[in-house]
Amino acid sequence: MTMADFQFLRIVLCQTSHPGNIGATARAMKNMGLKHLTLVNPLDFPSDHANARASGADDILQQASIVSSLQEAIQDCKLVFGTSARHRNLPQALVTPREMAERCHAFTSQAQQVALVFGHERNGLSNEELAFCHIHVNIPCNPDFSSLNLAAAVQVLCYECFLAFQTNREKPQQYIHYDDLADSASLEGFYEHLAQTLTEIEFLEPAFPKRIMPKLRRLFGRTQLEVTELNILRGILSAINRKFKG
Amino acid sequence: MTMADFQFLRIVLCQTSHPGNIGATARAMKNMGLKHLTLVNPLDFPSDHANARASGADDILQQASIVSSLQEAIQDCKLVFGTSARHRNLPQALVTPREMAERCHAFTSQAQQVALVFGHERNGLSNEELAFCHIHVNIPCNPDFSSLNLAAAVQVLCYECFLAFQTNREKPQQYIHYDDLADSASLEGFYEHLAQTLTEIEFLEPAFPKRIMPKLRRLFGRTQLEVTELNILRGILSAINRKFKG
Repeated sequence: MTMADFQFLRIVLCQTSHPGNIGATARAMKNMGLKHLTLVNPLDFPSDHANARASGADDILQQASIVSSLQEAIQDCKLVFGTSARHRNLPQALVTPREMAERCHAFTSQAQQVALVFGHERNGLSNEELAFCHIHVNIPCNPDFSSLNLAAAVQVLCYECFLAFQTNREKPQQYIHYDDLADSASLEGFYEHLAQTLTEIEFLEPAFPKRIMPKLRRLFGRTQLEVTELNILRGILSAINRKFKG
Repeated sequence: MTMADFQFLRIVLCQTSHPGNIGATARAMKNMGLKHLTLVNPLDFPSDHANARASGADDILQQASIVSSLQEAIQDCKLVFGTSARHRNLPQALVTPREMAERCHAFTSQAQQVALVFGHERNGLSNEELAFCHIHVNIPCNPDFSSLNLAAAVQVLCYECFLAFQTNREKPQQYIHYDDLADSASLEGFYEHLAQTLTEIEFLEPAFPKRIMPKLRRLFGRTQLEVTELNILRGILSAINRKFKG
């Protein structure tokens, strides 16, 4: 393990209601070597409750970024995991925490930014938020009582990352060229261009884009596109656009 | 996994100061399928704080046993794990949470009682308490900030037990739906259709198809397309073809 790996891994909490959970998250992160916390629209922060529950991880709270949208929180990330209950009717690939940690390690050891995204305490991530996540991760648990405390869920995922980062399993992983991966903002630009073009060629019914686009997001989300690949795909879309204008 | 295994596994909290931690422990236990909680000399229990943090795991609090010594809490147990910081000068064997969970499973699946014992929030288990534990378990963590919240430590160990108790851990691996993968012949048909269409929209120069097609094959090859995804992609190509013929 190099502590450097942790530099590239951030925890993103969306719409957190209880500042105590933010503090407990900071403690769980620091216990497992993480440093970077991003808060999307926290209801109550900074807060004495957060500081109390952080129990010495105040540095993480002080350095936390506060932003107003999930997109802003993840825009430079090459890999974004969203925590999700098991049975959502969403198309993204679903992995276990252990599989997630292996991928985190593969990316962070190549200096690629990775985010683990957690939703509101009661409602979890909205479908809109989940759609921005490339891969979903589900913590195996009792199906009859499946809602973990927010900081407890952070603890489990950070623990798995700590284990994965620890053993010097330096996977060569030439499967993907990490230096060349497209970031989240570029991907969103591509999806927008794709949806427009598919509407133009009358493949997408404008009234029902939701039938197909989530499936295409799942496909390209798990592929982890490189910049050159994204450029090829956008080039194809532009060629179609030109044909129709011409 | 049989729920029966969990019948033989108990969590023992010694000298707990904060009732909120008892409630959070009950929630973490129930999330992971455990039922039996034993409290050794809790400072403040029952408590509204405990009920609030249990968030629906009140049944575990109501059924908790309260005893006045660790010996009493574990007297019928065949295997007792004590949670411990790494560097105690104690002779007991020290295992990782994952090794602990394997042993738990081996015992509980043979209907043998097992206890996981946790100490005071600040001081942990005393040397005297640790001496009653057969094996020590240490949660790997940041050596510079190694004190986990009590309920967070319970969460990690119960999570490992949940995974170990899952019957011969058939990984669901929903990352890819193996049954639904497109075969090689279908993929080749897609590549052919793609090359034709890209030529039609003048994206591919017919003389130099080799510049782009290998890159697209690499992209879709590593994605491991499912049949439904392949059908969507071919549908897009057909929509483009129709537009140009029309």
